[in-house]
Amino acid sequence: FASKLPNTATSIFTYMSRLALQHEAINLSQGFPDFDCSPRLIALVEQYLHAGHNQYAPMAGVRALREQISMKVAATLGVTYDVETEITVTAGATQALFTVIAALIRPGDEVILFEPAYDAYAPAVQVFGGIPKPVTLYASDFEIDWDAVTALLTPRTRLVVINSPNNPTARTMTDTDYRQLIRIIRDTDCYVLSDEVYEHIVYEEAKHHSAAQYEALRRRTFVVASFGKLYHTTGWKVGYCLAPMELTNEFRKVHQFNVFSVNTPIQYALADFMMDAEEYLRLSRFFQKKRDFLITALRETGFRPLPCHGTYFLVADYSAISDLPERIFCEILTKQYGVATIPIAAFYHQEINQHLIRICFAKRELTLQQAAARLKSVS
Amino acid sequence: FASKLPNTATSIFTYMSRLALQHEAINLSQGFPDFDCSPRLIALVEQYLHAGHNQYAPMAGVRALREQISMKVAATLGVTYDVETEITVTAGATQALFTVIAALIRPGDEVILFEPAYDAYAPAVQVFGGIPKPVTLYASDFEIDWDAVTALLTPRTRLVVINSPNNPTARTMTDTDYRQLIRIIRDTDCYVLSDEVYEHIVYEEAKHHSAAQYEALRRRTFVVASFGKLYHTTGWKVGYCLAPMELTNEFRKVHQFNVFSVNTPIQYALADFMMDAEEYLRLSRFFQKKRDFLITALRETGFRPLPCHGTYFLVADYSAISDLPERIFCEILTKQYGVATIPIAAFYHQEINQHLIRICFAKRELTLQQAAARLKSVS
Ligand SMILES: CSCCC(=O)C(=O)O
Ligand SMILES: CSCCC(=O)C(=O)O
Repeated sequence: FASKLPNTATSIFTYMSRLALQHEAINLSQGFPDFDCSPRLIALVEQYLHAGHNQYAPMAGVRALREQISMKVAATLGVTYDVETEITVTAGATQALFTVIAALIRPGDEVILFEPAYDAYAPAVQVFGGIPKPVTLYASDFEIDWDAVTALLTPRTRLVVINSPNNPTARTMTDTDYRQLIRIIRDTDCYVLSDEVYEHIVYEEAKHHSAAQYEALRRRTFVVASFGKLYHTTGWKVGYCLAPMELTNEFRKVHQFNVFSVNTPIQYALADFMMDAEEYLRLSRFFQKKRDFLITALRETGFRPLPCHGTYFLVADYSAISDLPERIFCEILTKQYGVATIPIAAFYHQEINQHLIRICFAKRELTLQQAAARLKSVS
Repeated sequence: FASKLPNTATSIFTYMSRLALQHEAINLSQGFPDFDCSPRLIALVEQYLHAGHNQYAPMAGVRALREQISMKVAATLGVTYDVETEITVTAGATQALFTVIAALIRPGDEVILFEPAYDAYAPAVQVFGGIPKPVTLYASDFEIDWDAVTALLTPRTRLVVINSPNNPTARTMTDTDYRQLIRIIRDTDCYVLSDEVYEHIVYEEAKHHSAAQYEALRRRTFVVASFGKLYHTTGWKVGYCLAPMELTNEFRKVHQFNVFSVNTPIQYALADFMMDAEEYLRLSRFFQKKRDFLITALRETGFRPLPCHGTYFLVADYSAISDLPERIFCEILTKQYGVATIPIAAFYHQEINQHLIRICFAKRELTLQQAAARLKSVS
């Protein structure tokens, strides 16, 4: 069997979560909360399960949910997406990302992405014969060198993948970044895939700028978002994709043959739940407390936190403790110290050792406290 | 935007369901029940929603569910699939089909399929640059001409897609068909994608043979199945894929970047529900009553039913009533007579008029009765 992805292994998230389980480690690797979603949201799902909403939803998604999405996007980003032709509900953000790439990428097409990069982008590009063109960003600021991006542009560049707030760096793209992006792609016909799943988790002075808010980008951008991150329901697998009609048309052509439609009762429940905007508007404050708790706790350890402007991940530097490569360090941290995290190296295609790990702090304070106590003993 | 699927429109199921809604027609087009699933199954979902199972499931699926699938497959087909390495839970059967094609098909690869064919196969092949090679089957028996299949085989043939019980023909592949398939692909290295989502809906003398039951096929076959068809929950979007380890490895490489994982509480609920084998063993009897009811009712109309050996679809011939092309006939049937069905022509890539429509009978008897009364008036 000649593999189309010969260099792809089981994802680092599956690998580390499994290792955590095996060694009964505290799992701060894969990004998911260890607390539950709102009981009111569960009650809404129950309501729709009982109301007989258990057959296929419309291919583009339940209309009431698309309406709520449209209203949220208008209220929070100040941008309008048409309910009928520009919003599609997906089986999680991952399926939206994959489907955008499926609709766009042909063999030989080049896709610019920024490393460290979420691990799903490059293999998805490769499955369609596309060529990932990574721009390497380095700690500690992971700043984008736009000249390096410009240098990568060729007539074959079809897509630029951006991700802000960024997983794993916890940085957000600035207005200047967006203007640079606009400038360099202005005279090309490349598209933008903007992974904004952490849009409602931003801290202090940092602000979420959506690609949708720049008209020059909006026209050629697919914005991907996630209800799992919004409502602490990563296991429900519902997200959505925003794109101008022409782009949405092509997206849906693939979507309808990839999954056809998405869980019906959950879509109805989400639609009702979204009426209460407070639920997502308080998300940043909610996670900021956890972030600050973790940062304070890390002060007593040999780990040095890097700045965290968004997402529920924090990058920490362990160079004061060890010179080991990140993957090995993470193995030891899991097996010997009982804390599972993600090596930042896993987000680069080349081996690189910056002595960095990603810590997920979407956890109860008790969990973070226990993890910090364990991290304190690492030396 | 240069479309990768320039000839693909909104699926016929979306189109006809929408038309049905607009004209308040009885919707016997898209395949879904108009009755609800078991209240016990809903209670199980509620139980797991409350038990805090709302975060990511393992990438391959909840283990308890894979165990139940393995046991069901062993009990009903007499074949063993390993829980750890050969079973993957998917976001519906459609996602499984798409992912198999994603893992296998490269530009220029040829894929043999049988028309009338479920509408998702060919576009999925095309998205990956593959070339669908349709074998045309005709009413009334839709028999497979295996010599025609042999004639289509080339060194570029990578995959054969089979579907039994068949949607839309309602036929099942015979043991002889399977032996022919084995014979002609024996000396090739092509794979088989076997869509068996209606495996538990077969009638009378017809018997479901799974590709998995033929060792010569099992080695190179991906079997796709669906819980939506099993438990009247088409809107929950859970299915699975069975394949030998080496094939499952490649399947999962794509799966993990296409959807990553599938709804967690529903997977747990399905695992518990599957313990009661009666639930799917009585499915054929349940649907046979509906089929017979429809066939009897059609006797009073100008529609002549074709033999129906499986699935919850019946093909009916309207040539005694009209000479119109199928698509136009179906439009009129929906708009003027208030009954939505599917033109069989929609399952062929070429225009063809056999004066056939597909009627979904996964409906309450009252619904079927009302539809039959309307069909009686068609002339
Ligand atoms: C889809 S599993 C990984 C979850 C996640 O987004 C992460 O940990 O980065
Ligand atoms: C995925 S929507 C179509 C449902 C179905 O399988 C059919 O009607 O044939």
